Amino acid sequence: MAVRVVVNGIGVIGKRIAHAVRLQDDMNLVGISDVTATSTLRTVLEPDGPLYKTDLYCSDPNRIEEMRNAGMYVKGTLEELLQDGKVDVVVDATPKGIGAKNKELYKKYGVKAIFQGGEKADVADMTFNSFVNFDEAKDKQFVRVPSCNTTALIRTLWTLSQLCEIEEAVVALVRRAADPVNPRKGPINAIVPNMDVPSHHGPDVKTVLKDLNIKTLAVVVPTTLAHTHVIHVESKNPPKKEEILEAFAKTPRILTFKASHGYTSTAEIIEHFRDILRPRYDMYEVAVWEESINVMEDDIFWAQAVHSEAIVIPENIDAIRAMFGLAKDNWESIKKTNKTMGIY
Amino acid sequence: MAVRVVVNGIGVIGKRIAHAVRLQDDMNLVGISDVTATSTLRTVLEPDGPLYKTDLYCSDPNRIEEMRNAGMYVKGTLEELLQDGKVDVVVDATPKGIGAKNKELYKKYGVKAIFQGGEKADVADMTFNSFVNFDEAKDKQFVRVPSCNTTALIRTLWTLSQLCEIEEAVVALVRRAADPVNPRKGPINAIVPNMDVPSHHGPDVKTVLKDLNIKTLAVVVPTTLAHTHVIHVESKNPPKKEEILEAFAKTPRILTFKASHGYTSTAEIIEHFRDILRPRYDMYEVAVWEESINVMEDDIFWAQAVHSEAIVIPENIDAIRAMFGLAKDNWESIKKTNKTMGIY
Amino acid sequence: MAVRVVVNGIGVIGKRIAHAVRLQDDMNLVGISDVTATSTLRTVLEPDGPLYKTDLYCSDPNRIEEMRNAGMYVKGTLEELLQDGKVDVVVDATPKGIGAKNKELYKKYGVKAIFQGGEKADVADMTFNSFVNFDEAKDKQFVRVPSCNTTALIRTLWTLSQLCEIEEAVVALVRRAADPVNPRKGPINAIVPNMDVPSHHGPDVKTVLKDLNIKTLAVVVPTTLAHTHVIHVESKNPPKKEEILEAFAKTPRILTFKASHGYTSTAEIIEHFRDILRPRYDMYEVAVWEESINVMEDDIFWAQAVHSEAIVIPENIDAIRAMFGLAKDNWESIKKTNKTMGIY
Amino acid sequence: MAVRVVVNGIGVIGKRIAHAVRLQDDMNLVGISDVTATSTLRTVLEPDGPLYKTDLYCSDPNRIEEMRNAGMYVKGTLEELLQDGKVDVVVDATPKGIGAKNKELYKKYGVKAIFQGGEKADVADMTFNSFVNFDEAKDKQFVRVPSCNTTALIRTLWTLSQLCEIEEAVVALVRRAADPVNPRKGPINAIVPNMDVPSHHGPDVKTVLKDLNIKTLAVVVPTTLAHTHVIHVESKNPPKKEEILEAFAKTPRILTFKASHGYTSTAEIIEHFRDILRPRYDMYEVAVWEESINVMEDDIFWAQAVHSEAIVIPENIDAIRAMFGLAKDNWESIKKTNKTMGIY
Repeated sequence: MAVRVVVNGIGVIGKRIAHAVRLQDDMNLVGISDVTATSTLRTVLEPDGPLYKTDLYCSDPNRIEEMRNAGMYVKGTLEELLQDGKVDVVVDATPKGIGAKNKELYKKYGVKAIFQGGEKADVADMTFNSFVNFDEAKDKQFVRVPSCNTTALIRTLWTLSQLCEIEEAVVALVRRAADPVNPRKGPINAIVPNMDVPSHHGPDVKTVLKDLNIKTLAVVVPTTLAHTHVIHVESKNPPKKEEILEAFAKTPRILTFKASHGYTSTAEIIEHFRDILRPRYDMYEVAVWEESINVMEDDIFWAQAVHSEAIVIPENIDAIRAMFGLAKDNWESIKKTNKTMGIY
Repeated sequence: MAVRVVVNGIGVIGKRIAHAVRLQDDMNLVGISDVTATSTLRTVLEPDGPLYKTDLYCSDPNRIEEMRNAGMYVKGTLEELLQDGKVDVVVDATPKGIGAKNKELYKKYGVKAIFQGGEKADVADMTFNSFVNFDEAKDKQFVRVPSCNTTALIRTLWTLSQLCEIEEAVVALVRRAADPVNPRKGPINAIVPNMDVPSHHGPDVKTVLKDLNIKTLAVVVPTTLAHTHVIHVESKNPPKKEEILEAFAKTPRILTFKASHGYTSTAEIIEHFRDILRPRYDMYEVAVWEESINVMEDDIFWAQAVHSEAIVIPENIDAIRAMFGLAKDNWESIKKTNKTMGIY
Repeated sequence: MAVRVVVNGIGVIGKRIAHAVRLQDDMNLVGISDVTATSTLRTVLEPDGPLYKTDLYCSDPNRIEEMRNAGMYVKGTLEELLQDGKVDVVVDATPKGIGAKNKELYKKYGVKAIFQGGEKADVADMTFNSFVNFDEAKDKQFVRVPSCNTTALIRTLWTLSQLCEIEEAVVALVRRAADPVNPRKGPINAIVPNMDVPSHHGPDVKTVLKDLNIKTLAVVVPTTLAHTHVIHVESKNPPKKEEILEAFAKTPRILTFKASHGYTSTAEIIEHFRDILRPRYDMYEVAVWEESINVMEDDIFWAQAVHSEAIVIPENIDAIRAMFGLAKDNWESIKKTNKTMGIY
Repeated sequence: MAVRVVVNGIGVIGKRIAHAVRLQDDMNLVGISDVTATSTLRTVLEPDGPLYKTDLYCSDPNRIEEMRNAGMYVKGTLEELLQDGKVDVVVDATPKGIGAKNKELYKKYGVKAIFQGGEKADVADMTFNSFVNFDEAKDKQFVRVPSCNTTALIRTLWTLSQLCEIEEAVVALVRRAADPVNPRKGPINAIVPNMDVPSHHGPDVKTVLKDLNIKTLAVVVPTTLAHTHVIHVESKNPPKKEEILEAFAKTPRILTFKASHGYTSTAEIIEHFRDILRPRYDMYEVAVWEESINVMEDDIFWAQAVHSEAIVIPENIDAIRAMFGLAKDNWESIKKTNKTMGIY
């Protein structure tokens, strides 16, 4: 029987998760919930939108009238829906910090929940990655899917860790400053370094890859398309460049692009996903530039692009499957999610 | 019998036209042609790409080996294909100025051709717009589809001209500086005014709306998403705001967006097309901001967004239909093109 | 005897006015006032800063301790200073809307005040421009200097109005989205049209040029350097292009730049002011691109660049002189201000 | 007797060097040379420009007429000037690769020359840094001043190396994509990673700090103001954070900024230099964000901003002094250069 899913918070991440849930035959999207009548909400519920005919709920009883007055058809409050016992899991994609508050509601009604990387790790019983700890999610009530940056680093570093010992990884995260939809946030012409040095991303990776020695530094730059990571790993038994390239190429959800084929920046990589007609040009994969992979003595280097809007979506789908035992193992779930979503 | 189409020049425009041709049941894409192995070409011909299994030709006999050496399967030269008499029309979407040179080839083999707005108007027997002069294209050998800016202005100004006399239209074109795929072109932080004041766009509109008194001024700004036009029309019998809004709303290929619904900029409008899962987020429509429409005495104002990559694609499809008499009138062709491409 | 000036609000505009006051021999900067310890305030009061040894006051009695705790030496509150009767005029450069509130304080102590364009016109007894209404400011208590866009338009349109009748002026304002110092404000990649169409700038110009028939439309674009105006004027007796160029060239505070000399955008124009070592690269002048000036029958066109941070500074200095009768006429004041500030 | 200097190539770097030479009492700017009539050249030679009344030469005999026709007063060719024996040293700031060609000319006439970082290291007898190898430049004919990124890294890493052993330094360079004056270069909305991983900057640092184990990775981002470096150093005897901060603070040409004082990005740091009225807002210093300095076990971290237009200028001045023995040691030259140029 299909797992009954509600997505709470229909922003950049939530709208994609709800759409992805709909593509699964072992899940059933019973509704979405939000607190305000945004252009996003209007659009995805339109006849051409991916959530057409989905039931809409209001997460805050005090704002339901406002949403209705703005012309939205709101079936009821999220709490009413949970009360009715028709929900197995809430995927909470609300803004940073709101998820932790919502947790009380989920507890009250005994539903499972998945939180996103904006919440602190201790909001949940575990932090999840499809490659690393799928089995541990079984029967957990609260699971957290870490952020786009963390998920991308886990994918490639875990893959590398199958080839060699990683003494230390040092990563500079060059972050896109705002989502494409947002015309208010800057900077227009500046670089904003993160003053937490090393940044929180390293410890966040360690909530999944617990023994990894990783340090991260982050800067924010004026672009909306994708993050870029430049990575340096020290290893006493480094593989050859060709071995790393092969491992990345054959691992699902990691793609390799050749600059020599014209993929010189995040722009042409994103255009690739427009050109293969990926919905919303979503790149669920982490993209590694082939020429950037280099091994010099004990040092391994590469650069990768991370589509912040999309990369965590398949992880959320896998997490649902893991929590409810819907797949015999992670690779089965990954394969199924990838097939339904058209992921390489 | 289906019209046999070749698209020459698989860049931003050409790749979209080839894709759109494939969606038509009265046209047959017999091949595409280019001169170099770009990342675009690789992508659209991939199994996930919209031109998979399309035959690839080389437009320049001297470069065929280079393309083959770069790993592309090239069936032959464009000239060989034309020679074989299997092509009815070439849609030429090569860079500015190349189309005029290619015309000799098309003449030599007696094929029809459609040129894009980068070419001068006299390259063709007429400049085409689906609303205005569809019937005139019948039996013409050479037809030109004007640029994105011109096409957008023709659509809304022609629509307005059905409601009132236009004494004068003055338009400021605020242009996106580069296509999203292009990481080399700037400016990063400047405004570049066009020194041709008034700009060439006004006369270009007049190749279609011959009696319109229109002047345009253009500036280039650091964005990649869409152009924005701010328009001022003088009329002695101006309609009411509501009448203009209604006319725009009911005319195909014109859409209206409410800033009050969250569509405050080109960013949220483009996001709308990502959210309805439009291929490549292509906005074939011109988008008018509802609140920007205003009528004060003799003056009419509005602002509109123009997706430079996409807006001319349906016009190219209609132009083929017009040249070969495949539709009884323009509205039949517009309806058919819109249906196949999912255009509002 | 020198007029005693306080500048309230040391932001982008206020810090420049305070600096400019210091350069005048008929004015005396008796202090500056603010409410928080910004990096700007720290810098301008440093030994290398232009306001070194200026007395600092706090505009809000409740925030004086916070400023002192942040390490600033604050002499007292602004109200205490006004109470002491040592101030003749406050130049209020506080954020939009705060000036109107501050007016009560200035009334209470009977000091004169100059407000900036962020305040509504009715905050003051008149809206000022050095070219147009210098004499009327004499003995006024409250004067307003309009915004950068308004000031620029007044300068060039007034100059043109000396050559011909202006039937109508229609202006598209392509606005820089944020000041260079601001890394938080966007957009990064979008165009944001102003939904007030026509925009408020037209009526604001008319607070000074009362009989001008002017309509303005505005869009915001991702750049920090300067605004650009594209202007269309209708006139029944238009001058020749050469006459307009000559009038602009010979009028103070209007400069002409040739694109053919390399000034193709706001970038190279701003670089010009870096290269002549203008403090902060401030362009107090409005810059007209020569090639953009065109006259066709009844239509006059041109494009101009406006440095939003700097253009109103000399107007504030002139306004002080006008209010206190320190110059026999506007041209004397303009000449003096220009000479002290190095303005062309 | 003053050293007679010519600057060849009046672009972003050359115009600043020529200006700086003029500020020195032991150097004499005998001329500048270029090949085309740019807006920069026009401006710096204007009455308000810093090179007013400097003699202008043409570096290419074939282009002298073109320059003269463009309205420039050109005294003669560079070769004629060198032939006359009135030049002791040419500072060559021509575009990448041109310097190496010009070297033949300098050899022919036996003049000394300083090349910039765009040239390969072997163009010169040594690569120079004021802190590290001033004395070695004595009597050398050809000296190279490395690039902005290299110079900045040498300054801070050398300073750190006085406090501890550096096992390894790994640096991510987040580079501004174009100079502010350039409206043609992008990207507008992308991140472009350097495909040479590690990048050439590391080996370039080693032309000066020969024993340093350093690896660098670079990405280009859409901003014009300044580069940002994020740095990770491993050391077996790391100093405390406070010691590093103190060392940076007291070393000339290194500045520290507090994010908590409002210096959160390159924007506010550049604004600082506008606010202290530094010519062209030039930041000759490398700026370290105080809060970014961190020491964790063997790991040292920090982030620094580098003004690519300006940082190498004082090094060029010192290099002249070093080559001609004009100072008894590097600190005397540094002190003198800093004083004349207002450097902290």
